[in-house]
Amino acid sequence: METMDNSAAEQLRSIIERIERLEEEKANIASDIKDVYSEAKSMGYDTKIIRKVISLRKKQPHELEEEEQLLTLYRMAIGI
Amino acid sequence: METMDNSAAEQLRSIIERIERLEEEKANIASDIKDVYSEAKSMGYDTKIIRKVISLRKKQPHELEEEEQLLTLYRMAIGI
Amino acid sequence: METMDNSAAEQLRSIIERIERLEEEKANIASDIKDVYSEAKSMGYDTKIIRKVISLRKKQPHELEEEEQLLTLYRMAIGI
Amino acid sequence: METMDNSAAEQLRSIIERIERLEEEKANIASDIKDVYSEAKSMGYDTKIIRKVISLRKKQPHELEEEEQLLTLYRMAIGI
Repeated sequence: METMDNSAAEQLRSIIERIERLEEEKANIASDIKDVYSEAKSMGYDTKIIRKVISLRKKQPHELEEEEQLLTLYRMAIGI
Repeated sequence: METMDNSAAEQLRSIIERIERLEEEKANIASDIKDVYSEAKSMGYDTKIIRKVISLRKKQPHELEEEEQLLTLYRMAIGI
Repeated sequence: METMDNSAAEQLRSIIERIERLEEEKANIASDIKDVYSEAKSMGYDTKIIRKVISLRKKQPHELEEEEQLLTLYRMAIGI
Repeated sequence: METMDNSAAEQLRSIIERIERLEEEKANIASDIKDVYSEAKSMGYDTKIIRKVISLRKKQPHELEEEEQLLTLYRMAIGI
């Protein structure tokens, strides 16, 4: 069985621990985001609609307008 | 080391093969769906908007109307 | 407001309905797969391990062997 | 058309901006993680195996041992 020399093993351990620390930070932020949504919900806001608004805000105004016009066109075509 | 008796092993194999066959069928249908989208794209339709229309059609008319009113309200509130 | 002519609207509706039918077939197969896992669970099998075995069976034997050797090497290096 | 009063609109805007800031932080950390993987790859490590090691390290030793025994049992049963 092949083995890794000590310095490579140390390097690998260091890489893994850096990723694990970052993954933990990321999980903490994801948990903070969940908390803000819970807070919003307890204030009476609809979190699904908030998510939708946030996704719309990511788009350029021109891009958003074009998409909405096309969506309206398709919806009218099939009567929904 | 513990082992599985022959009939349990056969049963396990049968379960695995049934799942694999179903997974293959599912992958084939996913591929058919992709083909319809490619065809739609080649006809000049916007596939992202088609996806959106399909997701809207899954909702009850009343539910959809309510969501759209709330979205409009939130968008007006933040000026988007 | 721009509108779609009747033949384009019909074509769009046909595309959407084809996708919806395929999505429904796909959902039915996904439900069948879930049923086989439930059946396996009720027979005493561990479905998480079954999923793992199915993912291993997708790999080429040579590829699988190589991956497992490398995993053993990495695990020994960090003592897990 | 119903509208939101100013204080509710301000509150909604504040919620949305807090979520957007957190989403940005989360995206930055996800990008840092990607960078560590790229660095590991450039050093000659197999990033797929690193991911696997990290997922194994999340489990309790006892739980991991049990899963691996069961996996070996299932693999022997179906000859993989």
